[in-house]
Amino acid sequence: MTKPLNPAMATTGTPPVMEARSWLDGVQFPADRPLINVSQAAPVDLPPLALRQAIAEAAINDPAAHLYGPVLGMAALRAEIAQQWSASYAGAIRDRQVAITQGCNQAYCAVMATLAAKGDEVILPTPWYFNHKMWLDMQGVRCVPLTVGPGLVPSAQDAAKLITPKTRAIVLVSPNNPGGAEYPASTLRAFMELARAHGIALVVDETYRDFDSRSGAPHDLFTDPDWADTLIHLYSFSKAYRLTGHRVGAIVASEKRLAQVEKFLDTVAICPNQLGQIAALWGMRNLSDWVAGERLEILSRRAAMIEGFKTLTDWKLLGCGAYFAYVEHPYALPSDQLAKTLVTEAALLTLPGTMFKPANDLSAKRELRIAFANVDADGIAELFKRLQHLNL
Amino acid sequence: MTKPLNPAMATTGTPPVMEARSWLDGVQFPADRPLINVSQAAPVDLPPLALRQAIAEAAINDPAAHLYGPVLGMAALRAEIAQQWSASYAGAIRDRQVAITQGCNQAYCAVMATLAAKGDEVILPTPWYFNHKMWLDMQGVRCVPLTVGPGLVPSAQDAAKLITPKTRAIVLVSPNNPGGAEYPASTLRAFMELARAHGIALVVDETYRDFDSRSGAPHDLFTDPDWADTLIHLYSFSKAYRLTGHRVGAIVASEKRLAQVEKFLDTVAICPNQLGQIAALWGMRNLSDWVAGERLEILSRRAAMIEGFKTLTDWKLLGCGAYFAYVEHPYALPSDQLAKTLVTEAALLTLPGTMFKPANDLSAKRELRIAFANVDADGIAELFKRLQHLNL
Repeated sequence: MTKPLNPAMATTGTPPVMEARSWLDGVQFPADRPLINVSQAAPVDLPPLALRQAIAEAAINDPAAHLYGPVLGMAALRAEIAQQWSASYAGAIRDRQVAITQGCNQAYCAVMATLAAKGDEVILPTPWYFNHKMWLDMQGVRCVPLTVGPGLVPSAQDAAKLITPKTRAIVLVSPNNPGGAEYPASTLRAFMELARAHGIALVVDETYRDFDSRSGAPHDLFTDPDWADTLIHLYSFSKAYRLTGHRVGAIVASEKRLAQVEKFLDTVAICPNQLGQIAALWGMRNLSDWVAGERLEILSRRAAMIEGFKTLTDWKLLGCGAYFAYVEHPYALPSDQLAKTLVTEAALLTLPGTMFKPANDLSAKRELRIAFANVDADGIAELFKRLQHLNL
Repeated sequence: MTKPLNPAMATTGTPPVMEARSWLDGVQFPADRPLINVSQAAPVDLPPLALRQAIAEAAINDPAAHLYGPVLGMAALRAEIAQQWSASYAGAIRDRQVAITQGCNQAYCAVMATLAAKGDEVILPTPWYFNHKMWLDMQGVRCVPLTVGPGLVPSAQDAAKLITPKTRAIVLVSPNNPGGAEYPASTLRAFMELARAHGIALVVDETYRDFDSRSGAPHDLFTDPDWADTLIHLYSFSKAYRLTGHRVGAIVASEKRLAQVEKFLDTVAICPNQLGQIAALWGMRNLSDWVAGERLEILSRRAAMIEGFKTLTDWKLLGCGAYFAYVEHPYALPSDQLAKTLVTEAALLTLPGTMFKPANDLSAKRELRIAFANVDADGIAELFKRLQHLNL
């Protein structure tokens, strides 16, 4: 049965990662050329043993681990985020300006549900994060694509031209998924001023901030004492602490915004799961040195990707940072076909640019996303060897 | 900042359980008359130690516990549900007709998102489960209240009069939250035929089925080989296995429906959290005897509630089952004020009927929900003593 069917849901695309995974069905990879899976932005190694032990200890001995908690999350975790973020961004963030969610996707959906209804518009730079687009599609909110400039960095001036009376928000992801671009602080500041001038929200998803190559705060938006009138910040615990399977994210926004978010989260979630929150809090309190080491490893892989593409002269590296290289390939084959061909011809699972751009944007046909975070130095060398010897 | 604000979100009510909890702020309860909290339908005791140990063991040793999994849930858990449900309902449910969600609220929202868009209509019997109403409100879907008959059981004949070309679904909860009514199998069958005749969906939320006082299957809907053309079944692992804090629920529906649900879950959840799924699977495989004992305890509390209200001659027990007694009180005070008064005068936290019915339904002013599942025999005796000595 698919009748009755919400027409907005019917026209929403299928989940890209699940689709890409289906390309592997029935494909045999020889032992000397195993699959290199660069399709999903997810750590595949386990969290540190001490963190796993902390989860196990709570499961056995902490009664709160098994009970409903507050809709907006565990008080201690909200307070820890408020304190650490206030310090790292040199701003003033109060406990009650923080909410915990079942992952950062839910953080985004909850926020957007409070901002935009059917017929409203939201501006997303392209290439976009596909789930951001999918939520807008299923809600009947019009997604307005913003073409980015050099280095895949969007410009507030360009965005200004897209704002209409129906615009409710601009959504930025920095460091960017899928583009890898680390947006300059001045870019974020210009977007903040643009959004404020138009009375719309600026949503900044910083899921990958722990792997930013720059030192210090990546922007100064929280130093503005009135940040909460415009800014909504999103975060994920999945990457820094390898907690993808636990589903923990966060929102930092005004208390009034969070009172609206609370309605959504009460209805969709009741509360975030407790063990995930316990794990996130333990990680924040104990793993900062470990996360710093993880960042250095990711940065070394990023450097290897940049070096590697220098040797592939007919490919063009459009953006590289966080977990991602976003590249232009040299083949006549459109990327949605090329990505499937790379599975059989090179044992490489990438995602095509067509998953990250509107159907009418033909540039997507020449682009691929390579999520390299799980591939070590040897693996990256092997990846480039395979790309060099491609015979299409 | 609350501008911009989705107007549908603005008119959605605030979370009732959080609101009720706020009535406790600043209230001191004497040691000889502690609070009896009958506001939330949630076990407060821990899951059995063996289940907690299974979670801890997985946290330490099972790599999959920390990683993303399939959007629609862990294959083994989907298979276990398909097998156990097929047996208990004497029907044919395939693995691929089962999806796992982050709790049963999310199961409901995901299903409704595929069924109904802004301007569509959905029929809910009153009193309704408030989160069901809230999702429809925030989506701009019109909630059409269906007044129930004796014993708080709705009639398909009455529902038939409410169906319009905009109707997309009828949602039933059995055993009912908040009413406690166990819907007769013939009622569910009549609703199934009504929904099928109109080409709309019948959504049956069986969160409390493990505490049904009747033996055997509560309905025969799954024995219909074509059940999937109309029926969508929802379930929660929160109550039977005391896993509220882990957020695990399930949907049983057609594969085509689940392909649409998958878009929603990919976007909002990515996947259910893994430890919760591991716990649910372990519970299904190991705790059937324990759950049977839990059911007997809840049934004995239910019997005590029924006996107790026989002694309170000016109160009327409208419905009693699962975790709930739904009652008519004898006071001139409207229930939304009475519920607050009961906190200070009787150290009782109940929810008023006004949280479960439309604002224009004045019957709600005379009604209260008492979620008695956490109160043992002594507590129930004390609850009735306090109600008997109320002096309002």
